[in-house]
Amino acid sequence: MRPLRLLVPVLVGTALWFVPAPSGVDAAAWHLFAIFAATIVGVIAKPLPMGAVTVVGLVAVLVTGVLEPEDALSGFSNTTIWLIVVAFFISRGVIKTGLGNRLALFFVSRLGRSPLGLAYGLAATDLVLAPATPSNTARAGGIIQPIVRSVSASYGSEPGPSARRVGAFLTSSAFHVNAVTSAMFLTAMAGNPLAAQLAGDQGVDLSWGSWALAAIVPGVVSLAVVPLVVRFIYPPELRRTPEAAAAARTQLSDLGPMSSAEKVMTGTIVGLLALWTLGDAFLDMSATTTALVGLVVLLATGVLTWDDIKRETQAWDTLVWFAVLVMMATQLNALGLIPWLSGEMSTIVSGMGWQSAFVLLTLVYFFSHYLFASNTAHISAMYAAFLATALMAGAPPLLAALVLGFISSLFASVTHYSSGPAPVLFGAGYVPVGAWWRTGFVVSLVNIAIWMGVGGAWLKVIGMW
Amino acid sequence: MRPLRLLVPVLVGTALWFVPAPSGVDAAAWHLFAIFAATIVGVIAKPLPMGAVTVVGLVAVLVTGVLEPEDALSGFSNTTIWLIVVAFFISRGVIKTGLGNRLALFFVSRLGRSPLGLAYGLAATDLVLAPATPSNTARAGGIIQPIVRSVSASYGSEPGPSARRVGAFLTSSAFHVNAVTSAMFLTAMAGNPLAAQLAGDQGVDLSWGSWALAAIVPGVVSLAVVPLVVRFIYPPELRRTPEAAAAARTQLSDLGPMSSAEKVMTGTIVGLLALWTLGDAFLDMSATTTALVGLVVLLATGVLTWDDIKRETQAWDTLVWFAVLVMMATQLNALGLIPWLSGEMSTIVSGMGWQSAFVLLTLVYFFSHYLFASNTAHISAMYAAFLATALMAGAPPLLAALVLGFISSLFASVTHYSSGPAPVLFGAGYVPVGAWWRTGFVVSLVNIAIWMGVGGAWLKVIGMW
Repeated sequence: MRPLRLLVPVLVGTALWFVPAPSGVDAAAWHLFAIFAATIVGVIAKPLPMGAVTVVGLVAVLVTGVLEPEDALSGFSNTTIWLIVVAFFISRGVIKTGLGNRLALFFVSRLGRSPLGLAYGLAATDLVLAPATPSNTARAGGIIQPIVRSVSASYGSEPGPSARRVGAFLTSSAFHVNAVTSAMFLTAMAGNPLAAQLAGDQGVDLSWGSWALAAIVPGVVSLAVVPLVVRFIYPPELRRTPEAAAAARTQLSDLGPMSSAEKVMTGTIVGLLALWTLGDAFLDMSATTTALVGLVVLLATGVLTWDDIKRETQAWDTLVWFAVLVMMATQLNALGLIPWLSGEMSTIVSGMGWQSAFVLLTLVYFFSHYLFASNTAHISAMYAAFLATALMAGAPPLLAALVLGFISSLFASVTHYSSGPAPVLFGAGYVPVGAWWRTGFVVSLVNIAIWMGVGGAWLKVIGMW
Repeated sequence: MRPLRLLVPVLVGTALWFVPAPSGVDAAAWHLFAIFAATIVGVIAKPLPMGAVTVVGLVAVLVTGVLEPEDALSGFSNTTIWLIVVAFFISRGVIKTGLGNRLALFFVSRLGRSPLGLAYGLAATDLVLAPATPSNTARAGGIIQPIVRSVSASYGSEPGPSARRVGAFLTSSAFHVNAVTSAMFLTAMAGNPLAAQLAGDQGVDLSWGSWALAAIVPGVVSLAVVPLVVRFIYPPELRRTPEAAAAARTQLSDLGPMSSAEKVMTGTIVGLLALWTLGDAFLDMSATTTALVGLVVLLATGVLTWDDIKRETQAWDTLVWFAVLVMMATQLNALGLIPWLSGEMSTIVSGMGWQSAFVLLTLVYFFSHYLFASNTAHISAMYAAFLATALMAGAPPLLAALVLGFISSLFASVTHYSSGPAPVLFGAGYVPVGAWWRTGFVVSLVNIAIWMGVGGAWLKVIGMW
């Protein structure tokens, strides 16, 4: 525990608690808001890990009697939360069976003859794994980063003077690509379902299928453009890397044919994608049910054991913080705090057309991520109020909810502490801070242009506004 | 996975599903019952570990559409379940800080001059830890068993010919004592809150305080009598063990004064006991809230880290199976299946006075544990129906719910596979199967007499019937 850091959230919470509630806000809503604000400040200041901070927040809600125990624990039976928890279990199978590693070797062997090709190979790997890997940190740190490191080392590119040969470029590209794949699927980043839940609380339903459909076009454009942009503004010294492709081919043939566990894993992921895409529309089967069916397949075939499940600590961690934050955010909305707050914010953008208002809100939401070290903390703190304000300004609901949802991943590009993958990749030491921030700023502008321009047009084409 | 064992639950479930629902039971209730029965059979047959079996049951409920996803996941926000999960975290602190070990050494140093004294010393340790240790297996296996082993070894009593010197007696006594302490507190055995929940579904509220108050007198009598009974029917060869007490004294002084973590842990447990006992009555603070406050104290003081929480695999395991079983049992009651089933059972005991009917039900409930390898499986399968039948026969509600609840721990005495502590202690190898079953049968009769006789009288004295 870091006592000084504890002081800040406690002071924030106590101060807000004793400030009289603004007119139009009732006492219970205001008190819950004080605890919520203290929790979010705690998640940012980190006197304890995020999970522990949220437990303290939960206890504050219970001890003050702001909510009944049944309501305070309601987040734990939220279906969206269990979608993410189960997806964590399933993604464990991708790593455990070696399927993730095989995929990366496959793409590198096919595309890896140049640094740019390598970057696309890594992007393809990240994209294929994204729908069933809600831990973007696991994708970046567990699958992509080891490949970046071994390929770079094979060309003598190490952190330090030789970093720019190829390692710095690959790291930078992999980082920004990860932000894009995270934005593309409801299950590709742990915070996405939180955004979906908050949107649902305001009457905007985002299913797995509609999210993926909306993101596929701007996502693919981004994946095509981002590595190119990085190559242009932060180029590698090497131009050709034929040995990387050859080495991957060798490693791939050393692996031999797919094991039966890998085959089951592949079949399960294909089945999940099919059911997630179609289930909603044709089978009336929720995404959570689908994920649980996938988990049962992996358990019944022995690809995963029950011990794997019990030991998937990141899933249990996510369950706790997610349940508490969802509970607080949902109750704040139900108690009228979010509508009140966005009413206040609306006065700032009043008089603008909804287009200008929405662009302004989006840019503020995006670049305020310089202040956050976690997508989830940022989403919890700002998504609901910004969405509500956009809706009051007259923005089309699905457009507003989805674009803000996409941005909730894309804004991770800005810094080296933005979210889980950032410290993992930055920590490898290939890219200095200055270059990281400069590249991040340019890529952010590119992504904003793509996701609002191409994305907005695509959403119009498919009739989402 | 064990495919043959999988066949049995699947066949049971499928057969029941297609049998037409008996008159008076609607189709949804009957279909849920088919899935429930298959799940319980699966928990017993164990084609997969219990947690995995319950996940399969959950998926069956979801895929067949018997319940909506929100209802199917409702167990995860059950306050009683979180009481147990949090108690698991707290009990980790008892082991981690060394407080459990220190307590055992203290009692052995004071009482351990004879085998019977040693047995009482271990019983005292078990009793002190029981209220905050819902894993009776952790108490038996993590704290008591290592002491039994080292004390026995110091007297040259090993599994085999020398077992009867002292090791066999201590093992046997510790096993039966554990069943008694498990019965004494709502939080002393993971299945107790399940019984409490099932009773609550039938309108009989069992709080932490009322359970403890009801159990304290028969519990203390049992703890006094059971080691004596074991000494009489399965005596140790040694009569005096002064060296054991002396060795414990030496080890205790080697430990030095209590660490600050041990002090915090002690303070937390004392605080928890005070709040659990009084909170309900005077503070309107639920047992779950109390437990969470204790957890926050341990986290804030660094006695437990968030990593300890994430890695407490038994807690997460319990969360899953418990949530699914509670959900099914609660819904079965709400859908009318349990009332219907106990109506059918009532015809058997009709015409008897409630006293005879209740004694008959209790004995059947107790000795059917020869067929079970888990207290929880037994409670899930039979508690609700037996309680409902007893109530229909006219038994006083609190008496019936509590006595059946106590028995749900006490019946573990019967076999070497009865519940978690049994294989741990039996597996140590000091006691052969025949002796285990004989002692178990006698202790069971003694416990039934104490808990129905002394217990019933005590419940009458305190006005619970």
